[in-house]
Amino acid sequence: MSESKKEEIKVIEWLGDRVRLLDQTRLPRDEVYLETDRYQDIASAIAELKIRGAPAIGVAGAYGVALGALGIEAKSGEGFQKKLLKVIKDIGSTRPTARNLFQALERMQRVAESTKAVGDIKQALIDEALKIHRETLESDLKLSELGSALIRDGWTVLTHCNTGVLATAGYGTALGVIKKAAEQGKKIEVIATETRPLLQGARLTAWELQRAGIPFHLITDSMAGYFMKQGKINCVIVGADRIAANGDTANKIGTYTLAVLAHEHGIPFYVAAPTTTIDMSIASGDEIPIEERKPDEVTCFRGVCTTPDECDALNPAFDVTPNRYITAIITERGIIRKPYDRHLAKFDFSGKRIEAD
Amino acid sequence: MSESKKEEIKVIEWLGDRVRLLDQTRLPRDEVYLETDRYQDIASAIAELKIRGAPAIGVAGAYGVALGALGIEAKSGEGFQKKLLKVIKDIGSTRPTARNLFQALERMQRVAESTKAVGDIKQALIDEALKIHRETLESDLKLSELGSALIRDGWTVLTHCNTGVLATAGYGTALGVIKKAAEQGKKIEVIATETRPLLQGARLTAWELQRAGIPFHLITDSMAGYFMKQGKINCVIVGADRIAANGDTANKIGTYTLAVLAHEHGIPFYVAAPTTTIDMSIASGDEIPIEERKPDEVTCFRGVCTTPDECDALNPAFDVTPNRYITAIITERGIIRKPYDRHLAKFDFSGKRIEAD
Repeated sequence: MSESKKEEIKVIEWLGDRVRLLDQTRLPRDEVYLETDRYQDIASAIAELKIRGAPAIGVAGAYGVALGALGIEAKSGEGFQKKLLKVIKDIGSTRPTARNLFQALERMQRVAESTKAVGDIKQALIDEALKIHRETLESDLKLSELGSALIRDGWTVLTHCNTGVLATAGYGTALGVIKKAAEQGKKIEVIATETRPLLQGARLTAWELQRAGIPFHLITDSMAGYFMKQGKINCVIVGADRIAANGDTANKIGTYTLAVLAHEHGIPFYVAAPTTTIDMSIASGDEIPIEERKPDEVTCFRGVCTTPDECDALNPAFDVTPNRYITAIITERGIIRKPYDRHLAKFDFSGKRIEAD
Repeated sequence: MSESKKEEIKVIEWLGDRVRLLDQTRLPRDEVYLETDRYQDIASAIAELKIRGAPAIGVAGAYGVALGALGIEAKSGEGFQKKLLKVIKDIGSTRPTARNLFQALERMQRVAESTKAVGDIKQALIDEALKIHRETLESDLKLSELGSALIRDGWTVLTHCNTGVLATAGYGTALGVIKKAAEQGKKIEVIATETRPLLQGARLTAWELQRAGIPFHLITDSMAGYFMKQGKINCVIVGADRIAANGDTANKIGTYTLAVLAHEHGIPFYVAAPTTTIDMSIASGDEIPIEERKPDEVTCFRGVCTTPDECDALNPAFDVTPNRYITAIITERGIIRKPYDRHLAKFDFSGKRIEAD
């Protein structure tokens, strides 16, 4: 795991009885950390995007449950479970779209329910949160390795939002694939979209790419079509917040547009995500809840309002890319191709990985 | 021309021996005017986007030439012409893409060359500039009237950048069509893209729509696909900076992406522009020069830098939409449909307007 050490970005850490996390809203200007032993602070940090990215909020959610558990005083196992459910509910009500958060919370709940001795539950929950974090890094490294085979030497890769260490608290998904390809000695150039409204591309991906020494150009989201038409983009690779059983993929707003553009230009469009992002309980993307955020993220920028007063704005945080636009889904257990419904239905989520093709 | 009076936005005015223009970079927060008798200030105002929009910079360019002419001291007609050519060259070297600027400069030059008595040239140039301005307003009103027939009652119309009074110093092109439809009593709602990097949608279109009392929602450029997929957009209407002889259209960066998205969703995609935007001297959009602007328009916003230091960015100001994506081109002389090369070749640019279909 030398890749992780090289980065030395501690996105989120368990410190025995409290959690320390990097406030990503302050990047790239300031490296400010939040340290807390209150699960409510973790919930707020998720809601306010101090920590963001589907896998990273899964990790944060798990640590949040561990913190919440440490704070519970209960005489009976039943009393403990009841209070823990409240903690899980509070953390789960922060952001609706990313599957990983709920996947992590469900794991934490199962551990709590299956640990017989009440005295052991707190430690079991801490252990499970640490395991979720560890597995996130392992998945990232595996899927990055697998995905890197799709990226050819000399390619210019377009990516959207931030899907690196900051987004996963591991190694990264889409950006992990790019970094891995570069580490293998491939000459890769990146076109990074700024990703309005919250500029995760301009603020976070630019910051990570600079640290990784990978050459890149920043563009506004509206420029992607221009550069595709010029023949300057060899592939698009993005992360995911939730993948339905048919392969439909929710990801940062703007992803769908990039997929349509890639399709129109015959450019491969890859989604990179750990299997914890896949939600087999929903048949299609129509069922994925899309978070609507406050209009002032659109009308203002860092406290500077750009519009006239009382300007109405819409702010869906995600969109859904239908499976037909997706060339392949890169997971830690293999690269999945069309037809996604059939391939995902027989996919072994717990066993050994399928062969990449 | 009550529509123009109602607006009461004086984008640019000829004041006898000087020009007064609204500094659009300060909108919507401040209404600041620049008053000058130096043509160089007009050139700078165009280069710095204090005045922008293809038709408006045509008008500004013409007034700039008139100011330049007033400042010329020359003993001979030949000396005058030589100095005037320098003025025209300086103004013409500000922004390369919009056809209207060159169209206006060519008209001014022709007037100078065809006016026999040297003593009459200055007044002839002033008269021509005023005529260009007047004709811009007339074209806007005509094309808005024609285009409004395409907009149905109850529609939600998506538009990009700013194409209103501010963009033309008249009534508006794409936004003129929308305003005209609303004036006719049609219930119209607008989705306005913010239009990164310079936020002409968020700053200028929002301002104009508020003044016109037309309900609208602002979105980031990356959200257009999301709302089209939801079935919320009935048509897209945009302006143009230059239209080639085959109908290929250069317009604000991001327009091409909207055209591809509209095509994918079966939504009509209209271009509204006066015939002064059409450049019959170039066969296709491949020949339209695309202005590259400074990267800091992408990396910073109003002095606030969003990226890490020394972040590279690309900043093409326009893109070209191939004719096949354009449902119709709305001009003051009629609505043009495919095949554009054939229809434009036989188009009467100076005579009476063709029938709208």
